[in-house]
Amino acid sequence: MDACVFCGLISADSARWIAKEDVAVAFLPLPSEEIAPGHALVVPRRHTGAGLLDAKPDDLTQVMDLAQRIAQRMVERLGATGVCLLNASGPGSGRSVDHLHLHVVPRYPGDGDDCLPWPTGRSSHRLAVDPQVLLST
Amino acid sequence: MDACVFCGLISADSARWIAKEDVAVAFLPLPSEEIAPGHALVVPRRHTGAGLLDAKPDDLTQVMDLAQRIAQRMVERLGATGVCLLNASGPGSGRSVDHLHLHVVPRYPGDGDDCLPWPTGRSSHRLAVDPQVLLST
Repeated sequence: MDACVFCGLISADSARWIAKEDVAVAFLPLPSEEIAPGHALVVPRRHTGAGLLDAKPDDLTQVMDLAQRIAQRMVERLGATGVCLLNASGPGSGRSVDHLHLHVVPRYPGDGDDCLPWPTGRSSHRLAVDPQVLLST
Repeated sequence: MDACVFCGLISADSARWIAKEDVAVAFLPLPSEEIAPGHALVVPRRHTGAGLLDAKPDDLTQVMDLAQRIAQRMVERLGATGVCLLNASGPGSGRSVDHLHLHVVPRYPGDGDDCLPWPTGRSSHRLAVDPQVLLST
């Protein structure tokens, strides 16, 4: 198995930590990868190989709960007006690390649209099936 | 209170549904707002006013769990290779509806970078405090 950079940070206890909990941790990314000051990554301690797609349910719950508390602190302590939550999982998604990570990005007064995560383009992929095959039944 | 468009869809049972569960529901957005075919919105039935910032913990757990299952079905049933998960909450975040909603966007072979949610710009906001004031302690 290739070395996972997030497992490495956790085992070396080497990051700009925001939270270290039993199931989930949070830290600041490298300054060069920061979309806005205070941008946080929230990660389960347990490694799985496809982000959201194969995360364990309890890890997902704890990661989301921690992401919410950090989002609230961004408003209370950093002066953010809102937040964006981002995750990319699996091939083609743009993820650089397969270990599940949620980006929590604070939004500040004066932030422009170029640091919003809403794509300007649209997929030109055409489905051979009706997307309602996603129905659980 | 202003009428909430998502509460309206739920009470009128009027949407292209993917899932209707006790706590969370999922549906396809309007075609004009679809980033990729199969793009899904996952929403708790309960209304709160600031998305991720004030969602109830159990709603958050159930919404994330449903988002995961839908992401897995996008790979299994639609031929997606991966997914992006997006949420915007609070003023300045780009959210158009305050009721919590997670966007689950499938990624297909050949999708270009213009429908990836990674911002090209960076906030120019400067914090007056060290971002590690986000620390829980």
